[in-house]
Amino acid sequence: MSHKTDIEIAREASKRPIQEIGAKLGIPSDDLLPYGHDKAKVSQAFIDGVQDRPNGKLILVTAINPTPAGEGKTTTTVGLGDGLNRIGKKAAICIREASLGPNFGMKGGAAGGGYAQVVPMEEMNLHFTGDFHAITSAHNLLAAMIDNHVYWGNEQDIDVRRIVWRRVIDMNDRALRQITASLGGVANGFPREAGFDITVASEVMAILCLARDLKDLQKRLGDMIVAYRRDRTPVYARDLKADGAMTVLLKDAMQPNLVQTLENNPAFVHGGPFANIAHGCNSVIATTTALKVADYVVTEAGFGADLGAEKFMNIKCRKAGLAPDAVVIVATCRALKANGGVGKADLNKENVEAVKKGCANLGRHIANVKSFGVPVVVGINHFVSDTDAEVQAVKDYVKAQGSEAILCKHWAKGSEGIEDLAKKVVQLAESGSSQFAPLYPDEMPLFEKIETIATRIYHADEVLADQKVRDQLHAWEEQGYGNLPICMAKTQYSFTTDPNRRGAPEHHSVPVREVRLSAGAGFVVVICGEIMTMPGLPRVPSAETIRLNDAGQIEGLF
Amino acid sequence: MSHKTDIEIAREASKRPIQEIGAKLGIPSDDLLPYGHDKAKVSQAFIDGVQDRPNGKLILVTAINPTPAGEGKTTTTVGLGDGLNRIGKKAAICIREASLGPNFGMKGGAAGGGYAQVVPMEEMNLHFTGDFHAITSAHNLLAAMIDNHVYWGNEQDIDVRRIVWRRVIDMNDRALRQITASLGGVANGFPREAGFDITVASEVMAILCLARDLKDLQKRLGDMIVAYRRDRTPVYARDLKADGAMTVLLKDAMQPNLVQTLENNPAFVHGGPFANIAHGCNSVIATTTALKVADYVVTEAGFGADLGAEKFMNIKCRKAGLAPDAVVIVATCRALKANGGVGKADLNKENVEAVKKGCANLGRHIANVKSFGVPVVVGINHFVSDTDAEVQAVKDYVKAQGSEAILCKHWAKGSEGIEDLAKKVVQLAESGSSQFAPLYPDEMPLFEKIETIATRIYHADEVLADQKVRDQLHAWEEQGYGNLPICMAKTQYSFTTDPNRRGAPEHHSVPVREVRLSAGAGFVVVICGEIMTMPGLPRVPSAETIRLNDAGQIEGLF
Repeated sequence: MSHKTDIEIAREASKRPIQEIGAKLGIPSDDLLPYGHDKAKVSQAFIDGVQDRPNGKLILVTAINPTPAGEGKTTTTVGLGDGLNRIGKKAAICIREASLGPNFGMKGGAAGGGYAQVVPMEEMNLHFTGDFHAITSAHNLLAAMIDNHVYWGNEQDIDVRRIVWRRVIDMNDRALRQITASLGGVANGFPREAGFDITVASEVMAILCLARDLKDLQKRLGDMIVAYRRDRTPVYARDLKADGAMTVLLKDAMQPNLVQTLENNPAFVHGGPFANIAHGCNSVIATTTALKVADYVVTEAGFGADLGAEKFMNIKCRKAGLAPDAVVIVATCRALKANGGVGKADLNKENVEAVKKGCANLGRHIANVKSFGVPVVVGINHFVSDTDAEVQAVKDYVKAQGSEAILCKHWAKGSEGIEDLAKKVVQLAESGSSQFAPLYPDEMPLFEKIETIATRIYHADEVLADQKVRDQLHAWEEQGYGNLPICMAKTQYSFTTDPNRRGAPEHHSVPVREVRLSAGAGFVVVICGEIMTMPGLPRVPSAETIRLNDAGQIEGLF
Repeated sequence: MSHKTDIEIAREASKRPIQEIGAKLGIPSDDLLPYGHDKAKVSQAFIDGVQDRPNGKLILVTAINPTPAGEGKTTTTVGLGDGLNRIGKKAAICIREASLGPNFGMKGGAAGGGYAQVVPMEEMNLHFTGDFHAITSAHNLLAAMIDNHVYWGNEQDIDVRRIVWRRVIDMNDRALRQITASLGGVANGFPREAGFDITVASEVMAILCLARDLKDLQKRLGDMIVAYRRDRTPVYARDLKADGAMTVLLKDAMQPNLVQTLENNPAFVHGGPFANIAHGCNSVIATTTALKVADYVVTEAGFGADLGAEKFMNIKCRKAGLAPDAVVIVATCRALKANGGVGKADLNKENVEAVKKGCANLGRHIANVKSFGVPVVVGINHFVSDTDAEVQAVKDYVKAQGSEAILCKHWAKGSEGIEDLAKKVVQLAESGSSQFAPLYPDEMPLFEKIETIATRIYHADEVLADQKVRDQLHAWEEQGYGNLPICMAKTQYSFTTDPNRRGAPEHHSVPVREVRLSAGAGFVVVICGEIMTMPGLPRVPSAETIRLNDAGQIEGLF
């Protein structure tokens, strides 16, 4: 058992030149645009050239509801990719990019953990290949063009009180949440209330992750609603002629990034939309490209399966024409104990009864995922404190649900520790048993879609919403947005909207506070509770200790 | 004579892989961190390893006062680099990076022109290698840490009315010039006035361009004054422990970028500080590195020689221990006519008398540059409308000043058109006649330094300044900042502070409106007139026409 930290392990990695990693997937050097020696973007020409190939198998990794104990969803995604390669499958991983700003608040940022990581870790948590900076630029160019349009005569008759397009910055900066802009006199425009979100909350990020290609990207950017006129009609980004320049700024950011695992297997790391006000998956272009060059593609979705897998299925797969061949639900004994009511201090003590109690949470996720028509296996991400009796309790429970739970030791052992899960995944995927279908049809009315998710996935009795919310949904239906899927924004800690209700609660209600239209991304955001789109820094931000040491290595970031 | 546009010529370039370009300077592939196939950063390890080598010759390209006619300073810098290579010298070019934001306002952005350009032009005018994004991030992290410090108890007793550290964005956005931040209640902090500058105006940019290495960078970042306490003592970035994390964010941005000219000669493109509130030169680390690997390094300074060359000599050379071996002053017949009083509409008509009259401007720049002890040659950047009589008038005038003017046709012919200038530069540089010395010693009082620049470079009779300004300068002298050089911020269009006074005016006064201390960059900014640090977009921004065409090429940017 290793006692090394993630960053120590990552620094010891024997990275191979990225051209070698690309070669494993048949991507020629000329089609890899290198960023340093260990990162590259895949050229559009290559992507265009592989469109006629058949797809590999798509494996989704999701999890039970997150707890402070940690589940290790990314670690398992990375480990499973390595495990599949180990048993002779040509497998690639698809995960999200990290946001820069939050790293300067709390320590964080590994991509995986232990011996199941993606490298180079430092770069992936800093500027990486600049994708998020490009998104920030494109987003803020549009913002500047809106105020500039008003400044020079406001031909579109924009109601300055109804500009809905905020600005973004990839930084935790609470001072920018709400501002008054255009102060200082005539030369600076018309004073109005404005504000900044963090870049990952930008609709541009969601669009980049859902667009099929640059043409689709530009169309979606043009479709975004940025303001309303005095007559209440929407002003689109296209009306301000911003979509072309935004696309130019995003041209390189649209290309998927290729890096590698500690075991030198290919990993696509691309895009990173919020998992609450957006859909929380890596980019469609990375996933679809990976499916053309690999036999197996392992990807993950944000938060627990109630939010992440649901959106993966109902938004990403629906929009991109994807269908998962198998789903892995990650659980840990610790997290099941936490779901069973055990406090953080007692998580390392054996408590089989608490594990059994917590399994109710796992059980509902299994049933939910199966309801999409896809086969499920549970991966138990092993922690050193787990006892045999606890692990057996999980296995027994899952077996009773008609599925299988497999113990995985990839964190400590890399691919060797996850061979069994890899074999099971292959068996499920190659059985052809997947009969994937989204949960609801496009043509279902918006409010019914919300009810369908709430009752079938959350096991709620009802959805509560003001007439104002219902009227808004009806109005969008009349404007032609009724066929959009729903993007739920609720707490990730519970099936309910109350973060303290663990396990598998029944007989609860889902109150809808607000609905928002992401017309470019192509979904209706349903907000149930407080959603923070601009974090702040803590009292002692990690930025205070982040520095280069004498060897030129980064200290304090992890 | 070509009728192709700059971008058409640039797109026809036969670019070589960047590793080949590095090889011309003896930089091994492993020490080039590629960004795509045609851009790379030079590794710190390589830079460390060449420090003991002797320096090549340093050639500064500067110009007469800019006019709407255009002078072609960058074009001549690029052309001269190619010309030196053509006559058998191992030469490299060092120029600045372009700012992203302004490209979406007015068309712009070529690096050189005609057959004297640096490529890839598109990338250099978009995100390039991400340096400016890194500077934006580092700058704004510090801003967030200041407000966060106040939010969590304000241990440093910062006077929120005296926070001098603004935020930056690489975008023309007048709405952000002046804002009220931290609105919206207790969770968002203490409301206060704030604002944004464009990224190139950041002191972090100036520091990146003056720092010798990462250690020096961190020291300078720590030295920056961000606010004042209630007792009026300065709060440094170091007091907020921001310098380490900022250095981490700037780690890659500190590495010089290598690209190539149309003739496949090496060009370092790195850093881009404002030429008014900062010193307007490319980075010290790029120039010093180039001097270790090339026999000739051709670089340029912002605006005309009164601002650009003066700051190059008194700030950059002084701080970095550099000494130019020869200086090229670029002039065009058109710009001399403009200096001689001809309006834009009449610039294409022969007017020998106006050329002669305008030569007074050129003459003063020649004398000024010579006063630094360096040999001078004038490069006449040929335009199609120039007549032989006009060119001869310039040559005769310059000869009477004891120097030589050489006609250059690099714009139309590439290196072939600038061989004569290249040979003359070699002759001057190898003559060993340069006896470079800055204009004033470190220990001269600050106000006397201002007077020295104003009287000796601008030929002003006097410097006008309120007692408040003089008191401020004295206070800084008492705090130990008296040894800093001066960074003048005045109009680039005239030797005076009145942009309409062309030629070589005498008997004028230099009124100082304000002085600012850039304690990290290490200079005192002296502001004479309005200085715009956040541009706005025009009525019809070029962003409205920028787009990708069907071939995936960028339209409208140039």
